[in-house]
This record gives sequence, structure tokens and C-alpha cells, in this order.
Amino acid sequence: MSGAAYDLWYWPSIQGRGEFVRVFMEAAGLSYRDRAREGDAQALVEDMEARAESGDFAPYAPPYLVERKTDFAIAQVAHIVSWLTGHHDLGSGDAQTDLHLIQLQLTITDIVAEAHDTHHPVAGSLYYDDQKDAAARAAKAFREERIPKYFDHFEQALKVREGGPFVLGERWSHVDTSLFQLVEGLRYAFPERMKALEEDYPALVACRDAVAEIEGVAAYCDSDRRLAFNEDGIFRHYPELDAQ
Amino acid sequence: MSGAAYDLWYWPSIQGRGEFVRVFMEAAGLSYRDRAREGDAQALVEDMEARAESGDFAPYAPPYLVERKTDFAIAQVAHIVSWLTGHHDLGSGDAQTDLHLIQLQLTITDIVAEAHDTHHPVAGSLYYDDQKDAAARAAKAFREERIPKYFDHFEQALKVREGGPFVLGERWSHVDTSLFQLVEGLRYAFPERMKALEEDYPALVACRDAVAEIEGVAAYCDSDRRLAFNEDGIFRHYPELDAQ
Repeated sequence: MSGAAYDLWYWPSIQGRGEFVRVFMEAAGLSYRDRAREGDAQALVEDMEARAESGDFAPYAPPYLVERKTDFAIAQVAHIVSWLTGHHDLGSGDAQTDLHLIQLQLTITDIVAEAHDTHHPVAGSLYYDDQKDAAARAAKAFREERIPKYFDHFEQALKVREGGPFVLGERWSHVDTSLFQLVEGLRYAFPERMKALEEDYPALVACRDAVAEIEGVAAYCDSDRRLAFNEDGIFRHYPELDAQ
Repeated sequence: MSGAAYDLWYWPSIQGRGEFVRVFMEAAGLSYRDRAREGDAQALVEDMEARAESGDFAPYAPPYLVERKTDFAIAQVAHIVSWLTGHHDLGSGDAQTDLHLIQLQLTITDIVAEAHDTHHPVAGSLYYDDQKDAAARAAKAFREERIPKYFDHFEQALKVREGGPFVLGERWSHVDTSLFQLVEGLRYAFPERMKALEEDYPALVACRDAVAEIEGVAAYCDSDRRLAFNEDGIFRHYPELDAQ
């Protein structure tokens, strides 16, 4: 893949936030080198330090994407997939609709952060075992209040255009690939809760299923490049944090 | 102000996330009606419900800005100020630099969410008193680890262009107005910690001071339209959460 247009930098051993970028790029057929996975976390740390010391604007945290031709680096998931959408003419063709897609993507960013904070409500720098009591309470609120509130919003957005299965109707966008990854992550982390909830969100489940059938996404998910979810990532399955 | 181009909708009794939009618009001299403040929270709830039921894409949460001419509604602070920047030609004039500004704004969004979560680490729906122990631990990690990490990043961004005082040099942008509001909020919430830290971040403090002198910002901060910080907002002063 030396002819790849992009370098993706992220932590090598988890899906994490990087996976939202990957699923989008796989759906779009955009070629990229998954740089940190070629080496180890140290390669990522060194690239980030070099960019921070370059004197130019630098990412605060991974994931970030580098356009190899120009060495332009862009960070923040919602920002990366929105930029790629404009850069490769993958948007709706309507400026206000494209803005609404970005808005939805930013709302997905918010629920992803909340999903992470269910297992690390006190501090990302502390072990899960050192914040288990707070995590149990945070997860309960997330399961019972937050997931339904966000899902209501996404379900509604999926009904703006008639027919589905995507937010824009027949054409997928960066919002759909992120909703796919969100549902996958929540099914992994909260299987009991998702089993109880999903029947109330048929449009969201249909969107997830339709993204899974996009040729590039299906091939990617069948490959060994798709890491399994694990307990180092954003979405973690701790059975004690799940319930119907 | 019936000739105002925009309606801003937010909770009426706090600065909160809405204030990042306000400070930007005041700096830019953009006229807006502060709609929820003309009525009460119920007016906001009703407007949100009407938009959710309109069949069009709707905000998930306030703040959101409505362009009155078109009734186009846009939500998410970073998205609102980025859109206004493009719409009113307030950017850098360079596309990649404008993208880096948005990236910085999204990183400000992240620290603002973490600042909020220091007093509500378990759930936004629970009282502070019901999560005080977790809050004390979360605030300690935020003060000691997170503020310096973010401030290092912002300090570095403020040194990309020589001379300052703004990220772009002599010309302010939406990043500077948000850094101003961030520093103001953190000074309110964590005065002891900020007193100890600020001397390490001279560019950030200089940026804050320069934004305070922008004519529109100075006038706004002198007016009774600028609400005081309080213990219902994002930045709350609970002395037990502060320390050097």
C-alpha cells in the first residue's frame, strides 16, 4: 500500500476512536496506511512528538490522519470524516444538509465519550478497579437515560428522508458509518441493554445492517485488520456494568 | 434588536456552553436575539420540541443558532462558531489553517466537557451532593493532569505564529474567544489551581487579556447581559474541588 494517499495514526491495539475513521475510509474505498499498527505505540508517540515540536499546528491526541502528499495532519474523528467527505465529494450535494451531517457526527462524538466514561468516570489515568463503584452508577445512568435519549435523536434523523436505510436515504454518509460503529460498540459493551432496546429503534438497526453490507465495510469486517473489541478500548464489556 | 440576523437558543440562567457562542458573536459584532433569555427555559424546550417534530434535522441539545432569514438551525458550539466564521469571512484566508482552527476548537470542547464532569462525574441527572466523593477524585485528576496537558497544547498553538497575541497572530479567531471563556471559567471554578498554573502559560494569559480588550467583548462583559458564573453552569466553584 505504498501508493496510499493517507496515513492513519492511532493506538495499535484497540478499535477505539480510530475505528470510526477506518470504517468510513473502508466504506469509501480510500486507501490508507494504518501506521501505528505497522509498528507499535512508540511509533505513534514519536510521530506526535515530532508534530508538536514542528512549530506548526499539531494534533492534541490520536486519531489523526495525514495527507501524505502535503503532510497535512487533521485530528478529531468528526473533523476527519467531515473533511474527507468534502475532499472526496462524498457529501449530500447540499451545503445545509452537509452541516446537519456534521452536527449529527458531533453528537455521536458526545455519546462515544459518555460510553467511555461509564468505565472511567473518575479519571482515565486510574484503573477501572479503582473506580468500579462510580462506574456502576455511571453505567446505570448511561444505560437507562442516555442511550435512549441519543437513540431517539438518531432514530428521528434516520426518518427525515423517506425510505432509508441511511440518513440521506439511499446514499450512505459518514454519519451512517459512525452509527454502525456506535451500535457495534454498544452491543459489545452492553449486550443485555441493547437486546432490550433495539426493537424500539428499527431505523437505527436497519442503518447498522445496511452499513454492514457496504462492500468495503463487509470486506474489512471479514478481514484480520478489524481488531476485536477488548477491555482496553472505548467500548468495554464489564458484565457488572450491563443490565436490561 | 428585531433586525437581528440570528436567534440564539440556550438555557436562560447560566453562561454554560452558550457563552462560547455569545463571546464570539460579541467580538465579531454579529447581532442576535438571545431568545431563551427573553422568556424562560420553557420557551427553549418548546422550540426544541417543535424542531424535533418538524421532520427536518434538529439539534440534539442547546446551544443552537437559528439564521432567521432561512430558519436554518445549527447546533454544537464548535460547529456554530466555525460556521459563523466561514459565513462572515472571519477566517484566516487559508483553508488548512481554518481546519486547524476547527481542530483546536474541538479540543476546547473536550476540556469543557471534562471541566463539567469534575462536578458531575457519575451522571448529569444526579445532584452534586450525591457524587461528591467521585467529584473530589475527578477534580484532582483534572487539576493535576488534564489542565496542564491541555494548556501545554494551547500554549504551543499560540506560539505557531510569531508575535501573538492570538493564535493567528494579530487577528483574533473563534479559537481565541473560546480560550478566553475557558480561562475565565477555570479561574472561577479552580482559582487556587489557576493562580499556581498561570505563570507557566504566558501566551495563553496574553491571549485571554487581548480578547478581553476586543471592543465588542469588553462592552459585553461590562453589560448586564453577561451573567455571572454560578453553580448551575458548566464551570462551578466548589472550594472542596480546588487546590493548588
